Amino acid sequence: MTYNFINDYSVIAHKKILEKLLECANEQNIGYAYDEHTKRAQDYIKRDINNENVDIYFLAGGTQTNMTLISGILRPFEAVISASSGHINVHETGAIEGRGHKCVVCETINGKVTVSGIESIMNTHQDEHMVKPKMVYISDATEIGTVYTLGELEALRAVCDKYNLFLYLDGARLASALSYPNTSKTISDIARLCDVFYIGGTKNGGYIGEALVIVNDLLKPNFKYHIKHSGAMLAKGFVGAIPFEVLFENGLYYEIGKNENMCADILAKGLKSLGYSFMAESTTNQIFPIVTPRQMDYIKQEYGFEIWEKLADGNYVIRLVTAFDTTTKICENFIEYIKKYSK
Amino acid sequence: MTYNFINDYSVIAHKKILEKLLECANEQNIGYAYDEHTKRAQDYIKRDINNENVDIYFLAGGTQTNMTLISGILRPFEAVISASSGHINVHETGAIEGRGHKCVVCETINGKVTVSGIESIMNTHQDEHMVKPKMVYISDATEIGTVYTLGELEALRAVCDKYNLFLYLDGARLASALSYPNTSKTISDIARLCDVFYIGGTKNGGYIGEALVIVNDLLKPNFKYHIKHSGAMLAKGFVGAIPFEVLFENGLYYEIGKNENMCADILAKGLKSLGYSFMAESTTNQIFPIVTPRQMDYIKQEYGFEIWEKLADGNYVIRLVTAFDTTTKICENFIEYIKKYSK
Amino acid sequence: MTYNFINDYSVIAHKKILEKLLECANEQNIGYAYDEHTKRAQDYIKRDINNENVDIYFLAGGTQTNMTLISGILRPFEAVISASSGHINVHETGAIEGRGHKCVVCETINGKVTVSGIESIMNTHQDEHMVKPKMVYISDATEIGTVYTLGELEALRAVCDKYNLFLYLDGARLASALSYPNTSKTISDIARLCDVFYIGGTKNGGYIGEALVIVNDLLKPNFKYHIKHSGAMLAKGFVGAIPFEVLFENGLYYEIGKNENMCADILAKGLKSLGYSFMAESTTNQIFPIVTPRQMDYIKQEYGFEIWEKLADGNYVIRLVTAFDTTTKICENFIEYIKKYSK
Amino acid sequence: MTYNFINDYSVIAHKKILEKLLECANEQNIGYAYDEHTKRAQDYIKRDINNENVDIYFLAGGTQTNMTLISGILRPFEAVISASSGHINVHETGAIEGRGHKCVVCETINGKVTVSGIESIMNTHQDEHMVKPKMVYISDATEIGTVYTLGELEALRAVCDKYNLFLYLDGARLASALSYPNTSKTISDIARLCDVFYIGGTKNGGYIGEALVIVNDLLKPNFKYHIKHSGAMLAKGFVGAIPFEVLFENGLYYEIGKNENMCADILAKGLKSLGYSFMAESTTNQIFPIVTPRQMDYIKQEYGFEIWEKLADGNYVIRLVTAFDTTTKICENFIEYIKKYSK
Repeated sequence: MTYNFINDYSVIAHKKILEKLLECANEQNIGYAYDEHTKRAQDYIKRDINNENVDIYFLAGGTQTNMTLISGILRPFEAVISASSGHINVHETGAIEGRGHKCVVCETINGKVTVSGIESIMNTHQDEHMVKPKMVYISDATEIGTVYTLGELEALRAVCDKYNLFLYLDGARLASALSYPNTSKTISDIARLCDVFYIGGTKNGGYIGEALVIVNDLLKPNFKYHIKHSGAMLAKGFVGAIPFEVLFENGLYYEIGKNENMCADILAKGLKSLGYSFMAESTTNQIFPIVTPRQMDYIKQEYGFEIWEKLADGNYVIRLVTAFDTTTKICENFIEYIKKYSK
Repeated sequence: MTYNFINDYSVIAHKKILEKLLECANEQNIGYAYDEHTKRAQDYIKRDINNENVDIYFLAGGTQTNMTLISGILRPFEAVISASSGHINVHETGAIEGRGHKCVVCETINGKVTVSGIESIMNTHQDEHMVKPKMVYISDATEIGTVYTLGELEALRAVCDKYNLFLYLDGARLASALSYPNTSKTISDIARLCDVFYIGGTKNGGYIGEALVIVNDLLKPNFKYHIKHSGAMLAKGFVGAIPFEVLFENGLYYEIGKNENMCADILAKGLKSLGYSFMAESTTNQIFPIVTPRQMDYIKQEYGFEIWEKLADGNYVIRLVTAFDTTTKICENFIEYIKKYSK
Repeated sequence: MTYNFINDYSVIAHKKILEKLLECANEQNIGYAYDEHTKRAQDYIKRDINNENVDIYFLAGGTQTNMTLISGILRPFEAVISASSGHINVHETGAIEGRGHKCVVCETINGKVTVSGIESIMNTHQDEHMVKPKMVYISDATEIGTVYTLGELEALRAVCDKYNLFLYLDGARLASALSYPNTSKTISDIARLCDVFYIGGTKNGGYIGEALVIVNDLLKPNFKYHIKHSGAMLAKGFVGAIPFEVLFENGLYYEIGKNENMCADILAKGLKSLGYSFMAESTTNQIFPIVTPRQMDYIKQEYGFEIWEKLADGNYVIRLVTAFDTTTKICENFIEYIKKYSK
Repeated sequence: MTYNFINDYSVIAHKKILEKLLECANEQNIGYAYDEHTKRAQDYIKRDINNENVDIYFLAGGTQTNMTLISGILRPFEAVISASSGHINVHETGAIEGRGHKCVVCETINGKVTVSGIESIMNTHQDEHMVKPKMVYISDATEIGTVYTLGELEALRAVCDKYNLFLYLDGARLASALSYPNTSKTISDIARLCDVFYIGGTKNGGYIGEALVIVNDLLKPNFKYHIKHSGAMLAKGFVGAIPFEVLFENGLYYEIGKNENMCADILAKGLKSLGYSFMAESTTNQIFPIVTPRQMDYIKQEYGFEIWEKLADGNYVIRLVTAFDTTTKICENFIEYIKKYSK
C-alpha cells in the first residue's frame, strides 16, 4: 500500500514527542500528575487559552474522557444533548449510558447541533417523567468534518445560558477545527464559551491522550477523585502530559492542524476538479468523496480509506483522513493516481 | 534528592521500549489492536504461558483493567472476594463499586487471601438477601510484598472450583512475584490456575499498560465490546502493545523482576543487619522497615519513600520500592547512608 | 368534575381486591414471596398461559419492572431496541440508561416496532464500536393504543430468532390489548412468542403491581437476587401478589379489559359520529381525538383528560382513557355532553 | 403453628388502613403523588416533626428507599459509612454498590456507629486514591434491636458537621425506637439532627411503604426526577401514602411501637426469669435469646422464629420479633409454653 488515509491515528506519534521521551528517560518523576511535565503542559495550554483559572487533566482516549467528564458532572437523571452522529451517541458502545446517562438526540444542520433543536428538546422535557437535559455535547470538528463558526458557538452559549445547560466541546480533532481557512475562532474563544472541553491528542500527533480543560468553577471540586474512580488516572501522569508539553510549547499543535487541512484541501480540490462529488462540505482533515464500486476497487489497490456508507444508487461514500504525518507530496501523488483512472 | 524509592512508576519506561518507539516512528499501523505489534506481543505471552487458547488485551492501568474485567464478567448482584488490603478494595476510589459490584472482605494471612476465609464467606452468603460471591481477587505480589506459593494458588483453585468461583489474579507486580528466590511458580502456572489475570506493565518498565489474559472460554465472548464500552480501548492499540512486545520478546520482563528483587534484598538485609525490624516479611520489590521519627527525617534528606503507617508507639512504617531502573549500587549507597546515622 | 378520563390509575383498586385484603387481614404470611397468595397467583397465571415452566415475580410498577428485567438480562454493552415512543425510551426518566443500557430507536408503523426496522438496526450495528442490540422491547397495547396482531408478533419472534435477540413485551395495558374486538391473540400466544413479558396490574384494577413472567430458561437463574439487588423485592410479597390472585382466579382481568375497550369504543364512535377526527386508530382503552382550543375548554369544565400534543394548526390532540371503573353510562353521558357543544 | 415471631411483616396491614382503602374505593385521585391523601399524610408528619420545611416522599420498601436516597445524593466517588451489620451493608444484595457507592464499614458498640469510628475513617480517607466518605448511615432501632440515645444522635450530628457529612437515619423500625421506655428522644429530634431519614411503614403496620423525609435544603432539588429514574415512583402515589395518612393522623404509629415494645418486654422478662441469656440487650421489638438445640426444637413445634446464629458451643441465638398485631396474651402464652419445657 502506498499510503493509508483510513484515519489520523495510524502512526505512533510525532517524532518530537518520541525524542522528548528518550531525552527524559532517566528522570524520576512524581506519580499521579503531580510532576513537572504535567505542570508545564498545563501552563502552555493556560497561556494559549488566555485563562489561568482552569483545571486541566490528561486522560487516555476520547471515549474515556467523554464518559469520565459526563458522569462526573451530571446527576443520575440528567441527560446530554447530542447530534445523532455525535461520537458519544453512536461510536462509544454505550459508554455514556453505561455510566447512567441518556443521550437526547438533537436536530442538526451539516452535522452541527442547532439552537432550535436545543429549544425544541427543552420545550418537550418539562416534568419528572422524562430525563432532565443538562448538558450540550458538540464535536468540533464534527464527525463529518464540518466546523462551528464563532457565531454558532456564541449562539450555543446563549441558549445554554437560557436553559442552564453546560456546554461541552469534544475536541478530538480540534487542531484541524482551529486551523481551517478564514476562521477567526481561536482556542481562547473555545475556553471562553464552553464550560468544559477537551483538546485531542491521539488524533493530532500524540501517542495517547486528551487534555480535559474544566473552565466552569462549579465543575471543578474533587474531579481528581472522579478520574481515579473512573479508572482514568494514569500512575505515570507524565506519560499522558508529555505529548501536550511538546505539542503546546511552541505551537506544534496548530501547525499539525494546518498541515492536515492543507493536505485534505489538495485531496478535495483535486477530486472536485476530476468531477467527484462529496457527501459533506468538510473544511477540515476528513473528506467524504462519492465513488463508484469500480473506482473504489481501483483506489484500494494503492491507498487505504474507510467505507463510510453505501448509497441507494450503488455508489459509496468513502472517508479519506489526513494526519500529522501526511505530506502535500503524498496527496499530490494520490490525485495523480486518481487521474490515471479517469483517463 | 539522591534517589526516590517511593514507587516503581517514577521513570517513563525502559530505554529499550522508548528506542522501539522511535524505530517504528514511520509505520502506519491498523487501529484498535488489529496491528502487528499487538499480534507479536500476544504471541510472545502465549509462548511464555504455554497456552495458545487465550484472549489478550492491552489496557492502560491497573484500576482500569480491574474495573473493566470485573464489570464485564459479573452479573449485577454478584460480588468479588478480596483481601481488605486488596487494591480494588482500598485504593481504587470505589471503581469496582462504581461499576456496580461489592467487594466482600476476606480473612488474610500475610496479606494473602485464605481458603478458610473464602469458605467462611460462602457459608454466610446463601440467600438472595446478600450478594452472591462469584470471583476471588488476589494480588501477586500482594500489596505488602508477599507472594502466593504454588501450593497456595492450587488450593485457591480448588476452593474456587468447589464453589464455582472465578479466580482473578492482579499482576501489577507480577514480574517481582515470579522472580523471588527459590520459587518453582512460573507464569504458565498462573495461566493454568487462574480464569483470568493481568500482567502488569506500568510497574515493570512499561510507560503505560497492563496485559489482560483471559483463559476461561466462558469469559471470552464479546469482551472487546466491553472494553470499548468501559472507555478502555486505545485507538492506537499498538501504543499499548509495544511495551509488552519489548518486555516479552526475550525475557526482559523477568530480568526486571529479578533486578528489582535483588535490589530490594540488599536494602532489606542491610537494614536488618543494622537492627531495623519490618512490618512484613516481603520477598519482593517492596519492603516495609520500621523507623523512628528522627530516623525518618534523616532518610528524607537524601531518599524518597512513602510513609505507610504511623504506629501506636510513635514510630513509622515506611515503604521502600525498587524499580527496573534501581541498581545494586544505589541500594548499597543507601545502606551506607543509613549506617552513618546509626553511628 | 363529572369524571376524569386522564388515566387508568386514578382509583385505588377493584373492590374485589380490597375486600380480599380485609378478608385475609388476620393471616400471618411468609415474607419475600414464599407465601400462599403468591403461589396461587402464579398458578392461575400459569394455567392461563398454558405453561407451567415459567418463573413469575410480582413487582411494584412498570418502570421498576422494565429496569429490573432489562438490567438483569443484558450485559453492560448490550442495548435494547425500542420504538421512539416506547415507554422505556421517553417516559422513564432514563431509568434504563441509569442501569447502563442504551435504547436504540427503531422505525415504527402506528406506534409498533417493525421487522424491517429491526433488520436495519442489526445491519448497522456490527462491530465493537457500537452497542450490541440484544433485546427487542414492545408495548402491547402500544403507547398510542394500537395492538400487535398475532401475525405481527410471530414475525417479530422470527426476526429475533434470526438475530439472537430476546423479545420482551411490556403489558402495562395487556388486559385491553387482549380484549380488543376480533382478535385471535391470547395470553398464551404472548407466552409462547416472547422470552419474557409482564402483565400489568396497576393500570388494570390492581393497587400496585406487575407480574413479570420469564419464559426463556436462559433468563431464569438467580433472578431473585437481581430483584432484591434492584430494590424491587417486597418484604410483604403477598401484598404484591393478591391483586393478581383476585384478577386471575376467575378471569376478572379479561373482563376489565373488555369493559375498558367497550367504554372507549362508545367514546370513539360517539366522537366520530360528531365529526371529530383522531391522531391514531386506537382499538383499546386510550383514544386520541383532535379538538379545537374552544372545544377543549368546554370539555375541561366537566371532564378530565391529558393534553397529548399541540398541533401546528393550533388544535390539540387530547387523550381519553377508560379504566376498570369506567361505565358505559359515564361514556354515554360524556357523548351527550359533547353533543350539546356541537349544537 | 400458634404464632409466628419470625418478623414484623407477616400480616397484610393494620385493619384501620384496609378499612380506609375500602372507604375511598370510589374516589378518582390524581397520579404521581399530587393527590390529597399524599398531602394529608405529609401534613401529619410535618406536624409531628414540628417542621413544615421538609420534602416527603412515599416509597415502596426499605432497600428501594436506601438506594434511591443514597444514589440521589452522593457523587459517584463518594461513599457511605455504615455499621458492618448495617442493612445496606449486608442485607440489600449489593443494591448500594449497584448504584455505584461503596459502604465503608465503621466500628460499632452494641450495633451502633461510634463517633470515634467515624473519626478514624475520616483520618484514613484523605486523598483521591480512596473513596470520599460523605454520608453516615445509621439504623434506629439497629439491626440488633438497640437504640441511639438523644445524646448519641447529637454527638453523631456534631461529627458529621465537623467533616461535612450527611447524616441519614434508616427508620425501618422507628416506631419501636421512638417508644422504648424512659427515652426523651422524639421524632422531631430525629428531624432536627438528621439531614434525611425515613419512617418505616412496612414493619409498623403498613402494607408497603416508607416515608422519606428530606430536611436539608441542599438535598431537595429535583429529587422527584431521581425517584422516577430509580424506578421508585408509584403511579398510584396515594396507595403509598394512605398507610401513613392512617398511621399519623392520630398517633397510631406510636401506639404500634409501644405495643411492640411492651410485647417484646414480656417475652424478654419472661425468658430471663426462666434463666435464658441473650445475645444483645435489645429494648425494642426484636429480642435475641440463646437456646439449646433441644429447646429450639421444642419452641419450633408451636412458634415461628428466625435462627440468627449458631454459636461455637452448639447453642443457637434465635430472633423473636413482635409486631403491630402481637398481643400481650400471645406473649404470655408463649412464656407459659416455655415454662412447661423448663419443668
